[in-house]
Amino acid sequence: MQKTEEHRGEKRKRIERKLCCLRKKRYKLTIKHIRSYTSNMSRSPGRKQENHKISRELFVLTYGALVAQLCKDYEKDEDVNACLDRMGYSIGIRLIDDFLARSAVKKCRSYSETADVIAQVAFKMYLGVTPSVSCSNATGNEFSLILDKNPLVDFVEELPAERASLCYCNLLCGVIRGALEMVHLAAEVSFLQDRLKGDAVTEIGITFLRKPEDRRHRRNK
Amino acid sequence: MQKTEEHRGEKRKRIERKLCCLRKKRYKLTIKHIRSYTSNMSRSPGRKQENHKISRELFVLTYGALVAQLCKDYEKDEDVNACLDRMGYSIGIRLIDDFLARSAVKKCRSYSETADVIAQVAFKMYLGVTPSVSCSNATGNEFSLILDKNPLVDFVEELPAERASLCYCNLLCGVIRGALEMVHLAAEVSFLQDRLKGDAVTEIGITFLRKPEDRRHRRNK
Repeated sequence: MQKTEEHRGEKRKRIERKLCCLRKKRYKLTIKHIRSYTSNMSRSPGRKQENHKISRELFVLTYGALVAQLCKDYEKDEDVNACLDRMGYSIGIRLIDDFLARSAVKKCRSYSETADVIAQVAFKMYLGVTPSVSCSNATGNEFSLILDKNPLVDFVEELPAERASLCYCNLLCGVIRGALEMVHLAAEVSFLQDRLKGDAVTEIGITFLRKPEDRRHRRNK
Repeated sequence: MQKTEEHRGEKRKRIERKLCCLRKKRYKLTIKHIRSYTSNMSRSPGRKQENHKISRELFVLTYGALVAQLCKDYEKDEDVNACLDRMGYSIGIRLIDDFLARSAVKKCRSYSETADVIAQVAFKMYLGVTPSVSCSNATGNEFSLILDKNPLVDFVEELPAERASLCYCNLLCGVIRGALEMVHLAAEVSFLQDRLKGDAVTEIGITFLRKPEDRRHRRNK
């Protein structure tokens, strides 16, 4: 609740700053124009505000077609998994710009905050679900995102018997890894549990490889 | 405008019928519950109403990864195009169920109405854009969907020189063809213009292969 208010306050301030700056240029602007302006700040000039929301079913089915194609291309599940991870990584390093521009999240101050943003903002935005987050070690750099429901497998009944080691959604791990790398957070991301393989939930494990405290410490020296 | 009002009227009537039916069962229901109820009518019982809306960027990038993979797999553009069309067809024959369940559109009475539904409801729902529709022949079975902006190519700058014949978005043609086939409308669907190839707009041509009038005529015999 408090966060939302803070967020709104920030947004208002940003809009006011823009308003002020634009008034100087003697533009006649309504709040609507300003909103459109601020939301497009990081986009190419002249581009109208667009509706970015779509139904996820076409995406889910297209993803299925991609996995099916890779299963045709590679005999070994490990190769399919690696390929999905690589593809996801390439997507993540491009998607992060879009995410930062549209989510307006601030710099995270801890791994725990980062994990929360991934679950509550990024998953919500790109997959329409919010996994729960738990920290799984004492040093506080390992987290689990637990999905009661994984929309990516909406149309998948079960994995074929000969594809028992396939990480069907491995693209997601690559996306998270790529996006984190672009904000200077090295991480290992992998599936720890998968409902497609008979587990009770789907669990994505994220292990951050360096601690921001270390970096801060280095800066303060 | 008139259509929207008609649609609203219909929706209200449907809700009222449900309300009446549910009141008999002595449920205390608010309009919100009813809306949730009606929107879930065609879904499996016990399944909660879900948020189907997602940001399209992850989809657009995943689609890019799919096309890139097919370009690795097939040397000839024609083979990539054919594969995208086949994949799209498989998606379309599954997507139509989701579309009919969630759009609540009625049976279309003419090709023109069908083309309008594809553009105004389906494209809006699955890609977040609304192409304009024009009929391109006198017999009224050829239509053009004209996209000023094609979200699927958001992250594509241009086609590589050696891929000049690639129909990058050919999956869409397959999806439309597959979905139409499931409502007993045979059609040929292909790209007539493509901004990626330097055309001013992106144009998808739909040619319906049988006329509903013929079928009605046969029934009346």
